[in-house]
Amino acid sequence: MIGNTKKCLITGGAGFIGSHLARRLLAQGAEVTVLDNLFTGSKSNLYDLMDDPRFTFLVHDVTQPFWGQFDEIYNLACPASPIHYQHNPVETTKTSILGVMNALELALKTKARVFHTSTSECYGDPDVHPQPESYWGNVNTIGLRSCYDEGKRAAETLCADYRRQYGVDVRMIRIFNTYGPRMHPHDGRVVSNFAMQALQNRDITVFGTGRQTRSFQYVDDLVRAIELFMAKPRAETDRFFAAKGFGVPVLNIGNPGEFTMLELAEMTLKLIPESKSRIVFHELPKDDPKRRRPDISLAKEFLGWEPSVPLSEGLPKTIEYFRSIVEGR
Amino acid sequence: MIGNTKKCLITGGAGFIGSHLARRLLAQGAEVTVLDNLFTGSKSNLYDLMDDPRFTFLVHDVTQPFWGQFDEIYNLACPASPIHYQHNPVETTKTSILGVMNALELALKTKARVFHTSTSECYGDPDVHPQPESYWGNVNTIGLRSCYDEGKRAAETLCADYRRQYGVDVRMIRIFNTYGPRMHPHDGRVVSNFAMQALQNRDITVFGTGRQTRSFQYVDDLVRAIELFMAKPRAETDRFFAAKGFGVPVLNIGNPGEFTMLELAEMTLKLIPESKSRIVFHELPKDDPKRRRPDISLAKEFLGWEPSVPLSEGLPKTIEYFRSIVEGR
Repeated sequence: MIGNTKKCLITGGAGFIGSHLARRLLAQGAEVTVLDNLFTGSKSNLYDLMDDPRFTFLVHDVTQPFWGQFDEIYNLACPASPIHYQHNPVETTKTSILGVMNALELALKTKARVFHTSTSECYGDPDVHPQPESYWGNVNTIGLRSCYDEGKRAAETLCADYRRQYGVDVRMIRIFNTYGPRMHPHDGRVVSNFAMQALQNRDITVFGTGRQTRSFQYVDDLVRAIELFMAKPRAETDRFFAAKGFGVPVLNIGNPGEFTMLELAEMTLKLIPESKSRIVFHELPKDDPKRRRPDISLAKEFLGWEPSVPLSEGLPKTIEYFRSIVEGR
Repeated sequence: MIGNTKKCLITGGAGFIGSHLARRLLAQGAEVTVLDNLFTGSKSNLYDLMDDPRFTFLVHDVTQPFWGQFDEIYNLACPASPIHYQHNPVETTKTSILGVMNALELALKTKARVFHTSTSECYGDPDVHPQPESYWGNVNTIGLRSCYDEGKRAAETLCADYRRQYGVDVRMIRIFNTYGPRMHPHDGRVVSNFAMQALQNRDITVFGTGRQTRSFQYVDDLVRAIELFMAKPRAETDRFFAAKGFGVPVLNIGNPGEFTMLELAEMTLKLIPESKSRIVFHELPKDDPKRRRPDISLAKEFLGWEPSVPLSEGLPKTIEYFRSIVEGR
């Protein structure tokens, strides 16, 4: 670090998770530059930061190279929900792969530490439960979800090889389902779907039997894990993951507590007692993964981290956020 | 096609398979442009074509865009043997992904038909035998082979999505182990290894117990399959693969006949009776796939194709080629 102030770059920083991370890094005292093409991110997620002199906002697409001297690069740019990443599949793959390539090239040039957001989608439709980091996944290369899944898998490969080949100090988290305020209200994910449907008195659409489970992690838990992971010294990180047999530091971060889609629908309705919505059942989309649950023992061991916000605490805050959107506040 | 002569581009055309394909297309009457960065390809594979006025050779790296008007683009550029693709893992992934991206962009602009060479490595260390095209594979994203495996998987994804999203007429073959004259003599593959070792009276190195099997396909069988596949009208191709539930035309092409490493070593020694080599055993490399064998029923059904050259016929021709190299002919 040159100077007293840590300089951070967040690609995709106008998105749901990026905007939380930006706040967290500013609260730490860092200077934060956010880079976003505004495809799924929204400048409104950052309005309240614009007055902070330590904050910089750039409209830029990560498929094009970007330059600047940062101590830490957080690569979050990529549409992450099926409804968004299937809007332009070719661009999704390019964003994932060219984006991480550009981030890693910048890190190589500037000796920055890199945080890369990978995803539980790398496990595809898993045949191992829960999924440890050593699980290789079960992913279709040519299906409708492949643009995201394979783009993210190849991004992991690039991270691993930039580290092995060039020594870039990159760390990865495979993020499992995460929810919270500033989620995209129309991302088609189940938490936002159910909340928006209930708030607007539309039917709550459950896919399949509704008995498939998901783990739901509150965004604050994720941001805390990112912070802890990036604070770890390099030597300690290298030692730990080498001992575990990994080519690169990679951690599952998610909440192992499982809820069925039906339970979530019912919790949502309970939190919006005025809603006139009913629960209806639709056909399961093609390639939809049936079940995913993180094995977080590695994160516990290395970071001393585990999720601390239960759904009963996080869901009301999230619904309050969606309520403010629906009411135009 | 504008004019009477079919114009073909082969990326990686100075390599083993590309140089066979170039000859085959010239024999068909086509004009052929070969583009190669000469990393594993060698201009000597094409010396005898240089006088043909229908042949053009360009030194170019497919990670950089390339332009030209072709009826057919054959994308073969990528180091394909572990010893080569692990030499510069980051560049391997870039070659695979940026290479196919540039080929697909060119096809989109010029309405060319694209042939993309995928690989049985997309199946990784398979837990299904033999592997049908519908098998999703078992691949590590962050291991030593990932640069090739995941690069090739993401390339498939791009092919599938350029077809779905933009209508690019792309066809893919997952190539299984292929051998023949003009294989790279130092590619570390088992056929070239054993032959070169036996011809040079060095010990023949068998990894593991030598009981792991591989299927070996003679290069002429592969080139015939490529030719048949590219000759199929688009509508017929679309119908066939849609009926099979695939997002893109993809075929396994390989020889399902299995031989153990030990059997191959013994056949090689029998064909080089003057050799003083002995068979020795080494430890299996990390991530080495144990067994792969193609299910070729789809290719049989769609192309009426099956391999016709047995190892007993192809291996002598291949050893004759290596003999000419060792003897400096």
